[in-house]
Amino acid sequence: MSDLLLRALKCKNQERPPIWLMRQAGRYLPEYRALRQRHSLWEMFHVPELAAEVTLLPIKLLEFDAAILFSDILVILEALGAKLDFPEGKGPQVSPLLKEPKDIYSLPSLPVSETLDYVKKTIVNVKKELKIPLIGFCGGPFTVASYFIESSGRTDLPKTKEWLYKDPASFHHLLEIITSASIDYLKMQIEAGVQAIQIFDSWINVLSEPHLWEFSFKYLERIFKAVQAQKVPVTVFCRGASLVAEQLCCLNPNAISFDWQKPLSALRSQVPLHIAIQGNLDPHLLKAPRAIIRKEAQKLLSSMAADQGFIFNLGHGVLPDTPIEHVRELIDAVKSA
Amino acid sequence: MSDLLLRALKCKNQERPPIWLMRQAGRYLPEYRALRQRHSLWEMFHVPELAAEVTLLPIKLLEFDAAILFSDILVILEALGAKLDFPEGKGPQVSPLLKEPKDIYSLPSLPVSETLDYVKKTIVNVKKELKIPLIGFCGGPFTVASYFIESSGRTDLPKTKEWLYKDPASFHHLLEIITSASIDYLKMQIEAGVQAIQIFDSWINVLSEPHLWEFSFKYLERIFKAVQAQKVPVTVFCRGASLVAEQLCCLNPNAISFDWQKPLSALRSQVPLHIAIQGNLDPHLLKAPRAIIRKEAQKLLSSMAADQGFIFNLGHGVLPDTPIEHVRELIDAVKSA
Repeated sequence: MSDLLLRALKCKNQERPPIWLMRQAGRYLPEYRALRQRHSLWEMFHVPELAAEVTLLPIKLLEFDAAILFSDILVILEALGAKLDFPEGKGPQVSPLLKEPKDIYSLPSLPVSETLDYVKKTIVNVKKELKIPLIGFCGGPFTVASYFIESSGRTDLPKTKEWLYKDPASFHHLLEIITSASIDYLKMQIEAGVQAIQIFDSWINVLSEPHLWEFSFKYLERIFKAVQAQKVPVTVFCRGASLVAEQLCCLNPNAISFDWQKPLSALRSQVPLHIAIQGNLDPHLLKAPRAIIRKEAQKLLSSMAADQGFIFNLGHGVLPDTPIEHVRELIDAVKSA
Repeated sequence: MSDLLLRALKCKNQERPPIWLMRQAGRYLPEYRALRQRHSLWEMFHVPELAAEVTLLPIKLLEFDAAILFSDILVILEALGAKLDFPEGKGPQVSPLLKEPKDIYSLPSLPVSETLDYVKKTIVNVKKELKIPLIGFCGGPFTVASYFIESSGRTDLPKTKEWLYKDPASFHHLLEIITSASIDYLKMQIEAGVQAIQIFDSWINVLSEPHLWEFSFKYLERIFKAVQAQKVPVTVFCRGASLVAEQLCCLNPNAISFDWQKPLSALRSQVPLHIAIQGNLDPHLLKAPRAIIRKEAQKLLSSMAADQGFIFNLGHGVLPDTPIEHVRELIDAVKSA
């Protein structure tokens, strides 16, 4: 088994950096689009055989160095009694949305091992075939909470913000519930066989620094500790990570996944050598001509040469209209480094 | 005339900080909404008497320390032959959009003094009544270019990015044209009587640092110099300014307008004392109860006490559903500081 990823997460990789991409199992793959013709996104997340097949697709087609569970950060809300829908061409929809504090205090707390048993089965299915590390994941509590409050498509989270200004106590209660469920969920994933965890607290870039500590980091830290107690490394992803690199380091994750706004080598100076760094090409670069992709990949590789804790990735997910041959070019550039 | 703003822009204000808000002439004002019932947004921008009335509205109602010209960053595109539309509830629409390099090379270059004469008239009208400083503005060339390429509503600017990766030469040509027209436009505004300029390069947060220098800062610097040559101070606004504070300082603006992600007092340590700083409360705070607004305003005021180059503002525009009484509370907190 190739363990480049696990070695890099320990900051002890002396070979080339591992490469995987966020949303590597996605619309840019013709085989994925073919599956989507026959199945709804809801089915693809909930039917273990299908989710496993999708998880494995990019590995079979493109030979990444790690697989990531095909799922959605919102499935955890099923353990809080919510229903999910993924309508074509729109953002995910949660129902019912939370409208006022009493909605939070009356949420059911269903056992994750039952409501999310299908994720466990997906992992078991994937592990039967996979010879490289499998990454599990969940959303950051703040980000998950925001999807439980906002209608789809608002990127500035107006209702979430209004809530936390007006009634921080009930908002904290919500974050507590999501954090506990997330920890149970990650433990289940680890027991089923994932070897690394990534936490996507995607939307915390809308928060001021005091709010960041109060409404995100405090909860992230608990999740990191719970994962690390299982001897599994944890990576944190958020929009705007470049701006809060030093603060993220205080939470002691095993790795930080960075956006493309700052050169990764410059960010390394803010991140101690025992924390790995992942990233950070602009996903839009993959629409450029292949020679430019190769050149930019090589630039990043040489800027991070000899860094034992570097994981090659994009700064965000692969865009749906990325040509697959361009992804292949990128992987080849990394593997021949 | 109150010249708090102009003194703060020179970093020589020994009184309380001046306050004005981005989008202070906007939907949160009932009088603005009443005007919008009778006039389209296009009319409100293009009819000098109307635009002047709207510019003055927040001054009459709320007594801000500065007025800002009521206009849109996209009007400059009229000097490049484009038509603008501002359909209800959608983003602004430019037609025709640029699709390929030849569209750029065949753009007309119409004299700004003629195509944008209505802005000059607006300024003259405003100045007849205004006893405080008037801020003029334009968009940053990168941001304006992106609206000339993207259909409305895309915040990650996929077509713009694809263009600059695939054909940087023609993209630079577009930026050159917009920069020249913007400089003419700002000179016209200054001749007509604006006493300060703000440049809104709103969308440069999507760029990596090398691209930031290449496709935004290079052009901003030329605009800053042209404005300063007219003895008028220039403020720069962009999303994500907190992340690039030090780089923005290299361009030597008179002031930087910051988002709310970092405490302003922490940002001051990155910004030399001869550059003013503007900001930076979260616009969503203004939906919180008034006591919280007052407390947060006081916190910001005391963190910046004795800073002679501090201009009180939000980190972005006032939200349309902000209660006007909450804005009044904020202004009162600043004025009684």
